[in-house]
Amino acid sequence: MADEGRAAVAAVPGHVTGLFSVHRDPDPRVAGSRGAGLTLTDGVRVRVAPTDAGGAGVWLDGRPADVAPVRGVLDAFDGRAAVRIESDLPVGRGFGVSGAAALGTALAANAAFDAGRSENDLVGLAHAAEVEAGTGLGDVVAQARGRAPIRLEPGAPGHGRLDGIPVDPGRRVEYVTFDEVSTAAVVEGETDRLTRAGEAALDRLRERPTLDRLVALSRRFAREAGLLTERADAAVEAAEAAGGTAAMAMLGDTAFALGTALSDAGYDPTTCAVHPCGAGLVPDRREGERGDGDAGSESG
Amino acid sequence: MADEGRAAVAAVPGHVTGLFSVHRDPDPRVAGSRGAGLTLTDGVRVRVAPTDAGGAGVWLDGRPADVAPVRGVLDAFDGRAAVRIESDLPVGRGFGVSGAAALGTALAANAAFDAGRSENDLVGLAHAAEVEAGTGLGDVVAQARGRAPIRLEPGAPGHGRLDGIPVDPGRRVEYVTFDEVSTAAVVEGETDRLTRAGEAALDRLRERPTLDRLVALSRRFAREAGLLTERADAAVEAAEAAGGTAAMAMLGDTAFALGTALSDAGYDPTTCAVHPCGAGLVPDRREGERGDGDAGSESG
Repeated sequence: MADEGRAAVAAVPGHVTGLFSVHRDPDPRVAGSRGAGLTLTDGVRVRVAPTDAGGAGVWLDGRPADVAPVRGVLDAFDGRAAVRIESDLPVGRGFGVSGAAALGTALAANAAFDAGRSENDLVGLAHAAEVEAGTGLGDVVAQARGRAPIRLEPGAPGHGRLDGIPVDPGRRVEYVTFDEVSTAAVVEGETDRLTRAGEAALDRLRERPTLDRLVALSRRFAREAGLLTERADAAVEAAEAAGGTAAMAMLGDTAFALGTALSDAGYDPTTCAVHPCGAGLVPDRREGERGDGDAGSESG
Repeated sequence: MADEGRAAVAAVPGHVTGLFSVHRDPDPRVAGSRGAGLTLTDGVRVRVAPTDAGGAGVWLDGRPADVAPVRGVLDAFDGRAAVRIESDLPVGRGFGVSGAAALGTALAANAAFDAGRSENDLVGLAHAAEVEAGTGLGDVVAQARGRAPIRLEPGAPGHGRLDGIPVDPGRRVEYVTFDEVSTAAVVEGETDRLTRAGEAALDRLRERPTLDRLVALSRRFAREAGLLTERADAAVEAAEAAGGTAAMAMLGDTAFALGTALSDAGYDPTTCAVHPCGAGLVPDRREGERGDGDAGSESG
C-alpha cells in the first residue's frame, strides 16, 4: 500500500425524497429541486487519505468504482487521495448514495488536506458535482441538514433555502427495494407533469409539516407524477390495506414507510430510523484496526 | 401533581459566541447578530407537558423561574404547559442558556401540543422571543444548527444566513466561568466599537474558517471591542503563556479554549466537546422513572 497522509472520515445519512419538482439552470449551484424527504440512519461513510499517484483511487465497498460526482469533488482539492466509500444502501435505488458519497468526500477531503473551506462551500461543491453528473438534484443539501428536510428553494447554500419537519426521536423507517431507476433518464426528460404535482404537494405539506403528512402527500405525488413503478405501487397498496401509509423513494424502484407499515403488510423490509442530524466528520475506525499509519503519523 | 398530557423533551446545545456585531431592527426576526462561536455538548433539556391551569409553570433545575423568552415562546401556543428546564450550564455567563431554553420550549411545545409547525418557524419564534427579552441576539439560530456556526447575516430563518466551520469529531472544549455579564447592558449600549471589531474579525475568519482561527480571532476581538473582563483576561493570558489559545465567551465573565489550553495553564476547567449537531427532540427520560402518565396515556 502506498504511503498515506492523515486520513479523515465523514458519515453522511441516506436520503429518500418523497415529492419533488425539477428546476434546471446552467449554473449547477442554482439548479436543483424543491421537495421533501427523510434522511436515514442507514447511510454512507467516506474515508479520504492523501496519497501519492500510485495509491490514488476511489473504492465503493472495497471495489474500484468510478463515481462521477466524487471525481468532480476531488478535482477541487490540490493533491491525490485514496477515497474509500462504504455504503449501507444500494446505488441507484433512490437513497441518495451518489450525493452522500460526494458530500462525504468533500467533508473528509477538506479535513485530510487541511483545506480550510467552510461547510457551505463544501456542500455547494458536492451539490454542483452531483448536478453536473446528473445523479441527483436535492440529496446533498438535504443530507447536510439531516432529519426531514424541506427544500423550499432549489440549489446550493447561498441559492437554495431549506426548512425541516420536526422529528420525534428514533422515528422508525422501513424500506423495501426492488430495482434501479435512472435519475438522469427522469430528470432530463419531460418533467412538466412531475413538477406541477411536486409543487402542489409541497404547498400542501407546508400548510402543516408533519412526517405522516409527508408520506401521505408523497404517495399521492408518485401517482400524480406518473412515476410509480409496479412493485413499489404494490407495496404502497399493501401498506395501505394493512392500515398504514407508504410512498415511493424518488428515484428508485423502492417503497418506504414510517413505523411498521411495510412489515404489517407482509413484506420483510430493512429498518432504520430518521437521522437525528446531518452529515459530519466522525472518528476513523480504521486507525485502531491498522495499528500504524494514521495514528502513528499524528503522534510523530 | 396536576394531570398532564403527552410530554415532549428537546435537547439544545449551549453556545459560546467568540466574536460578534450587533444589528438592531424594530422587527425581532430581522434583528440579531453576525458572528461566530461554538455549540457545546453541555446544554439544556426542556420538557413540556400540556396541563391545566393548576399545573402550569416554568421550572429551572427544579425551582420556579421566570424566563422571559420562554414565556414569549409559550404565548404562541394554545394551551397551558408545565415547562421543566434542566441546564448543565450557568445562566448569564455567555453560554446561551436563555436562548436554549426558548428554543427547547418551542421544539417541545410543538410536539406536545401537536402544533404542526416547521423547524424554521419554531427557530424564528424562539429567536424573536429572545431578542424581545433582550437576553441574546444570535444564540438561537446557532443552537439550531450545531457544531461551529458562523452567522453570516443576522436574524431568524428567512432573514438570517448561516455557514459553519467544519469540526473534527469530539473536539474538546474547556471553560472556566467567574461571574455574570448582562447581555442587555452591553447590546443596548454603545456598540459601534464592538461592531467594527466584530465585522473585521468575521471577515478574517471567512477567509479561512477553522476552529483554531476562530479562537485566535475571538481573543483579539474581545480586546479590540473593549469587552474583556479582568479574570477572563487573566485566563486568556495564562493559556497563551502555556502555549495555547483561549478567548472570552460573549457575554459572560467566562473564558473558553480548545483542547487542554486552560488546564495546561493551571486552571481547573469544566470540559465538554463541540456539539456534533443542533437542537432536537429526544426521548423523555422521565417516562421510565414515573412508570405511569405519559407512556400509559399513549398506549391507552
